[in-house]
Amino acid sequence: MYKKLKIIVVGGDGYCGWPTSLHLSDRGHEILIIDNLSRRKIDIELGVDSLTPISSMHERIESWSELSGNRIGFEFIDVAVEYDKLIQVLKFFQPDAIIHFGEQRSAPYSMKNSSTRRYTISNNINATNNILSAIVELELNTHLVHLGTMGVYGYSTSGFKLPEGYVKAVFKLKDDMGNEIITEENEILYPPDPGSIYHLTKTQDALSFAYYNKNYGLQITDLHQGIVWGTNTKLTSRDPRLFNRFDYDGDYGTVLNRFLVQSSQNLPLTVHGKGLQTRAFINIEDTARCIRLAVENPTDNSDKVRIFNQLAETHTVLSVAKMVSSFTGAEIINIPNPRKEDEEHELSVSNNNLVQLGFKPILLNENLLEEVKMITDSYKHRCDHKLIPCTSKW
Amino acid sequence: MYKKLKIIVVGGDGYCGWPTSLHLSDRGHEILIIDNLSRRKIDIELGVDSLTPISSMHERIESWSELSGNRIGFEFIDVAVEYDKLIQVLKFFQPDAIIHFGEQRSAPYSMKNSSTRRYTISNNINATNNILSAIVELELNTHLVHLGTMGVYGYSTSGFKLPEGYVKAVFKLKDDMGNEIITEENEILYPPDPGSIYHLTKTQDALSFAYYNKNYGLQITDLHQGIVWGTNTKLTSRDPRLFNRFDYDGDYGTVLNRFLVQSSQNLPLTVHGKGLQTRAFINIEDTARCIRLAVENPTDNSDKVRIFNQLAETHTVLSVAKMVSSFTGAEIINIPNPRKEDEEHELSVSNNNLVQLGFKPILLNENLLEEVKMITDSYKHRCDHKLIPCTSKW
Repeated sequence: MYKKLKIIVVGGDGYCGWPTSLHLSDRGHEILIIDNLSRRKIDIELGVDSLTPISSMHERIESWSELSGNRIGFEFIDVAVEYDKLIQVLKFFQPDAIIHFGEQRSAPYSMKNSSTRRYTISNNINATNNILSAIVELELNTHLVHLGTMGVYGYSTSGFKLPEGYVKAVFKLKDDMGNEIITEENEILYPPDPGSIYHLTKTQDALSFAYYNKNYGLQITDLHQGIVWGTNTKLTSRDPRLFNRFDYDGDYGTVLNRFLVQSSQNLPLTVHGKGLQTRAFINIEDTARCIRLAVENPTDNSDKVRIFNQLAETHTVLSVAKMVSSFTGAEIINIPNPRKEDEEHELSVSNNNLVQLGFKPILLNENLLEEVKMITDSYKHRCDHKLIPCTSKW
Repeated sequence: MYKKLKIIVVGGDGYCGWPTSLHLSDRGHEILIIDNLSRRKIDIELGVDSLTPISSMHERIESWSELSGNRIGFEFIDVAVEYDKLIQVLKFFQPDAIIHFGEQRSAPYSMKNSSTRRYTISNNINATNNILSAIVELELNTHLVHLGTMGVYGYSTSGFKLPEGYVKAVFKLKDDMGNEIITEENEILYPPDPGSIYHLTKTQDALSFAYYNKNYGLQITDLHQGIVWGTNTKLTSRDPRLFNRFDYDGDYGTVLNRFLVQSSQNLPLTVHGKGLQTRAFINIEDTARCIRLAVENPTDNSDKVRIFNQLAETHTVLSVAKMVSSFTGAEIINIPNPRKEDEEHELSVSNNNLVQLGFKPILLNENLLEEVKMITDSYKHRCDHKLIPCTSKW
């Protein structure tokens, strides 16, 4: 048995937030979604739309209530800006946990121009700080669970497994006489190496979490997630009104989504550069499950932030393209890489903390076929070809 | 001979910004100050005032022009908010260098309540990002010189000298089989350990600088400065209309200033806790000189941010109290420490990069007496006793 919790999901209308909210509601937790609906508004700004048709937030919640008998609350608040509203809601709801998805989460969008750079920094840093500051101000005993990214580490490992958040390090320093000193072993945050403005904000968040934990004793779990794939979960599939979004545009569509829509449109799969960049992947159903594991197994008021790597497996971009091609017969082509990155590197990652809590990942080769069918069969008519390429270059 | 430069000083009305602007103008550089005058506005908010009477910005600039024949420009802009105005000014002025003091710089102020926490984070992170983003947007070849703080490192060393920004580290990791791996030597940013929300922002700035340098090739120098003491410089002393500010209130007055005003008021010197915290110090004249050295010796578009430790000497708080007491005869008392900090630690710091550029520091024991006289003799009647204690606790 597990304890029924009062949980606020900030960003609960988004791609990860919505399936997570349903998953937690289905477990009997009391869910309140806070969202500014910015993801839908950015679609309007970019002139794009989810490949899957999605209902309004109000319709989502009503149909969920109708189907499950569980009520999910919704407050339309911009947590990066409307601090006073956030305070009122937290004071009233007294959450056991806050799950924080309330950040601009596209690397290409964050790199488009100075306006998107500035929005991403300001929104993400202020959203995180407002939530932290509100917990301190109200003296809540609330566990904050934050969605981070594998990208805080940089993407390359060589002969070693990426640890979870922290690394043991020995420093070479000098004493006052100029003689070399080797320090004792220290545990430090793994040195950050962000690959975009978006990733930068998550490394800055990590410093905020460490400080609020150290100074105010806040309970915080930071989940460094791989690239999420998949659209619907068992619960969002129950009714078209519950469907989750599927982004395929050049800014918000991640690599696997691009390959899937390209297949459905009989277009070649576009691999950026050599395609030997290794990436971490996780299915959307597993995102919800991992967050549930983190929330239902809170950290104590310990001496540091708890950090999990939230991923199922790693693959090179090229091998993912080959996997999709094996199902669909699509051609694979290499195009110039729009990003500054190492195009050929290993990545081996520990996800031991989640495995210890019971995480059994869904793997690409078991479930990708179903996803391909859903996309190619049902919604390919909704795809606008010209939105697929990534036009944001850096 | 040195090259005459076009320099923007963001925050040029402040305690460090004003003497630096005069120093650089006196060297023949073309100076444009950008400031939102927030420091004066915070005085109003806190009901405090500089011990030294200071002129308005317009009077400062007019009198400087009258006395020196050098014109300093002034634009009233909030760089954290008014991005479009910032862009217009940068486009027109085409600076060779931007000196960035445009941040809320009091640790106690940043820790007062959620409003000051939120202001400090939002102002400092957005100010820095807006300046960086504007340099990228306008494709300027501008050297950014930023005032950081020694507090990014945490304050404690033990048997070693704090290096300048970077440290050589060896990591202990595991391979896929679980065997321990010792990595080769890496150079990483010295692990941050901020002691307040204010210090946190400077560690977040450091990540922004590293990313903008890596991705956009920006030339950046980050100066990690110790506690500044002293009021007037040779140039601000030339006329009362040029006088620099002297803060003695519990939020903005630093430790040495507190001891000086306490002496002048025949009050005991209040040492927080044991007073065996070691701190780094630098004279205000040296702040201006060090920044000049950084600006006149720009970094190339190298592979990393250049980081200097900007300090002259280190002392325990208690030894500084004893130094003041030796001049004034004031009593020393220990009071409960309002901060969470180690009250007894060493601090040894390298300032080799600035010394190599010619920095010859002014030391406390040579010049403190003059400062004491100026405060005790001339302005003690302007002191309001009840503003001295630090009321912000954390």
